[in-house]
Amino acid sequence: MSANNLQLDANGKLLHFLSIEGLNQQILTEILDTAESFTSVTDRTIKKVPILRGMTVANLFFEASTRTRSTFELAAQRLSADILSLDVNTSATVKGESLLDTIHNLQAMQIDMFVIRHPDSGSAHFFAQHVHPGVSVLNAGDGQHEHPTQAMLDMYTIRHYKQDFSQLRVAIVGDIMHSRVARSQIHALNLLNTAEIRVIAPRTLLPVDTESLGVHLYDNLEQGLLDVDVVIMLRLQKERMRGALLPSEKEYFKMYGLTQERLSRASPDAIVMHPGPVNRGVEIESSVMDGSQSVILQQVSFGISVRMAVMSMIVGQSGLQAKA
Amino acid sequence: MSANNLQLDANGKLLHFLSIEGLNQQILTEILDTAESFTSVTDRTIKKVPILRGMTVANLFFEASTRTRSTFELAAQRLSADILSLDVNTSATVKGESLLDTIHNLQAMQIDMFVIRHPDSGSAHFFAQHVHPGVSVLNAGDGQHEHPTQAMLDMYTIRHYKQDFSQLRVAIVGDIMHSRVARSQIHALNLLNTAEIRVIAPRTLLPVDTESLGVHLYDNLEQGLLDVDVVIMLRLQKERMRGALLPSEKEYFKMYGLTQERLSRASPDAIVMHPGPVNRGVEIESSVMDGSQSVILQQVSFGISVRMAVMSMIVGQSGLQAKA
Amino acid sequence: MSANNLQLDANGKLLHFLSIEGLNQQILTEILDTAESFTSVTDRTIKKVPILRGMTVANLFFEASTRTRSTFELAAQRLSADILSLDVNTSATVKGESLLDTIHNLQAMQIDMFVIRHPDSGSAHFFAQHVHPGVSVLNAGDGQHEHPTQAMLDMYTIRHYKQDFSQLRVAIVGDIMHSRVARSQIHALNLLNTAEIRVIAPRTLLPVDTESLGVHLYDNLEQGLLDVDVVIMLRLQKERMRGALLPSEKEYFKMYGLTQERLSRASPDAIVMHPGPVNRGVEIESSVMDGSQSVILQQVSFGISVRMAVMSMIVGQSGLQAKA
Repeated sequence: MSANNLQLDANGKLLHFLSIEGLNQQILTEILDTAESFTSVTDRTIKKVPILRGMTVANLFFEASTRTRSTFELAAQRLSADILSLDVNTSATVKGESLLDTIHNLQAMQIDMFVIRHPDSGSAHFFAQHVHPGVSVLNAGDGQHEHPTQAMLDMYTIRHYKQDFSQLRVAIVGDIMHSRVARSQIHALNLLNTAEIRVIAPRTLLPVDTESLGVHLYDNLEQGLLDVDVVIMLRLQKERMRGALLPSEKEYFKMYGLTQERLSRASPDAIVMHPGPVNRGVEIESSVMDGSQSVILQQVSFGISVRMAVMSMIVGQSGLQAKA
Repeated sequence: MSANNLQLDANGKLLHFLSIEGLNQQILTEILDTAESFTSVTDRTIKKVPILRGMTVANLFFEASTRTRSTFELAAQRLSADILSLDVNTSATVKGESLLDTIHNLQAMQIDMFVIRHPDSGSAHFFAQHVHPGVSVLNAGDGQHEHPTQAMLDMYTIRHYKQDFSQLRVAIVGDIMHSRVARSQIHALNLLNTAEIRVIAPRTLLPVDTESLGVHLYDNLEQGLLDVDVVIMLRLQKERMRGALLPSEKEYFKMYGLTQERLSRASPDAIVMHPGPVNRGVEIESSVMDGSQSVILQQVSFGISVRMAVMSMIVGQSGLQAKA
Repeated sequence: MSANNLQLDANGKLLHFLSIEGLNQQILTEILDTAESFTSVTDRTIKKVPILRGMTVANLFFEASTRTRSTFELAAQRLSADILSLDVNTSATVKGESLLDTIHNLQAMQIDMFVIRHPDSGSAHFFAQHVHPGVSVLNAGDGQHEHPTQAMLDMYTIRHYKQDFSQLRVAIVGDIMHSRVARSQIHALNLLNTAEIRVIAPRTLLPVDTESLGVHLYDNLEQGLLDVDVVIMLRLQKERMRGALLPSEKEYFKMYGLTQERLSRASPDAIVMHPGPVNRGVEIESSVMDGSQSVILQQVSFGISVRMAVMSMIVGQSGLQAKA
């Protein structure tokens, strides 16, 4: 079964949210529009809508996370769901079971929605293939494959500040090869008809199939940043350095760290993004991170609205309808 | 004070749920009937009833658990309780205190219901003896003593598929000696007038008092399974093998593992049960676990309804009344 | 900016709750009065009021805690808040970030109230200085600085049993120098016009500025206890003993442990308090802890009402108004 078939029903309605690949421009735009309607909800004193009332959302984080897990939990709370947080990261019982047995057992608990982060690529799709109809799976990051809600909050941030994707040059900088975030971003930027996508990385960290994704490759940061409207820095996974794919942090910053000087080569009103948490002085100079072009903290806020949007579309309600 | 007096008031109403021993057929049947009324609740889109609204249920798991803890938490959520989950397993503060001091301190927090799992037999009773009137204790497993909600979800499963206990042959297979699950099951099966209870285990793992419990003993699996209607496999506690009470896993499976071939000696419509998590290929062959006679996942689902039933009976409401 | 300015607005309304120092008698009395109105709430079957409905309270415990964390969580639940519990103690992600980056990221999640315990003195103030207007910070213990809600629940307990502070002799016994609890208590007792505050400790554990706080110093327990109305024992932080500031536990108990005999030198109706958890036989003899003069468990109960009071005053509602 293709990812497309798993995620969308015959009428194009969202059933699961597993990967940007396999979705279409219409769904992505609906997510962004729905999220916009929720942004006002999160600004109100009483931040709740009853869209998931009486439903149970289970958080299954097989990898540690603070930001993604917290914003998924807040999104579910603000939709009035009950939440079951399973520390599968430390639970010996779950660790001894196969993923399939874990799925079957959790599903027997009549959970309506699973949010899963797992170190294996494809695990969210695997999960979705094995739940009953009516139960949905949201991918919160699977191995080096995709992290689709992160990409959608990034698209929301770009649209919020830059409106029209068809006029934009967007640069993604860092370890593209191992990044599920970059993979999801590139798919989303393509579906939204971004004028130009640039990928900037050391040659050792460029995946072989990047060109087929419709991106331009650079291994020189200064050249890659020229006239771009959006700069997306990736988080440096320090464990890669042991594998000799990367030089030291200091060396990395010298070649690929975003400084004020380098940023000045981009468009004067370019925005700077990062999925967090930032290694200050490694991916980004502190003054850039805290500067006026950085929208890194806004990304976190928008992440709640975007996750509320995806959850509510899956249960068949848009935020606008819910508020009317 | 006897377990009976602790658990039931003068009118036979449930005050705590500590052990099957000390209860009676009427209470067990009321639990099963009440659970049945909740099964429809858990199937609805909005799965909540307000029976525990404004009350606080505290989960105290001094031993790790995923399944039992999650289903207790879901049961409490679906009854609209507030939940306090205490990681007493890892909390240094609690570890330094005596159990009695922990009880007194938690009770001072005006908690209405405690769910406790503890490695010491008798700890749930001890807990119940030291809380104020109106506060109740539910045993989620105490040492090698009892695990009464597990036994009741097993009884629910048996009644669901087989109706009349007085016509049934039930076999329990495995490490009976160390199993709180088996102990609770035997008491419950006896109270519900089960026609025949068989206990199948290596001689080293048969408790000395098993015969007084009104069961038939077998150390041969093939013989024990002949014509039974229900096969309950116990989880193999691997740490027992170090103590030389058990052979290797491979050896165990060879003698006591449930295969299709062995299962064919039971009644053709026999059901296969297991409290989970299953060690595939140790207690049960995978094809049996995933086969048509296995009701292992249904047990998990029924566990939520049964725990809702016990909690609601303790606060003085049956599910049927609550729904009317 | 002074602590006073951070905590109170121009009209004297509570914005944050960071330290007793910087507050005034009027606010402290309002907290005690509001808490009193909540005591009846916690005694009701349905223990909830909607004061924080739709708001999110985040618990950030950078140090382990059971009692304080649980009572803050129960207080927030009983005010109908949504709760986000972040295990910052074990989260590698958060550990790698600076406190300021953690603050900024959490704030981006539109949290209304932060409860923070942190090993660094001043961290709660630092946190409060960096959140947006309308977001509040409650100090659940910062280093050796203050633990203001603990002090307020102690004041509540004293007022409950002894009414008029201006007639009272209060003794605080133990490691005053390192105790944030003692520091907060002394400020609160002074603001409430306590007749006499005595501090009893080994000379090595008396801070140099204690006299300026308006207290009387004793290094002899028998002398210090003479005719006091309230005895507050501090928890012995065992790690201090390694630093040679303290003798062995046995030696400590011999000199500063509260026995029945020593307590008999206090006023006959003196009450005995302790912030918990108690090291039995180190700070207090078991018979005193479990005796009729001990109000240690009542302190825990009152802690919920006091935390409800502080939270509700910060959002601009007193418990009495909310209930009317």
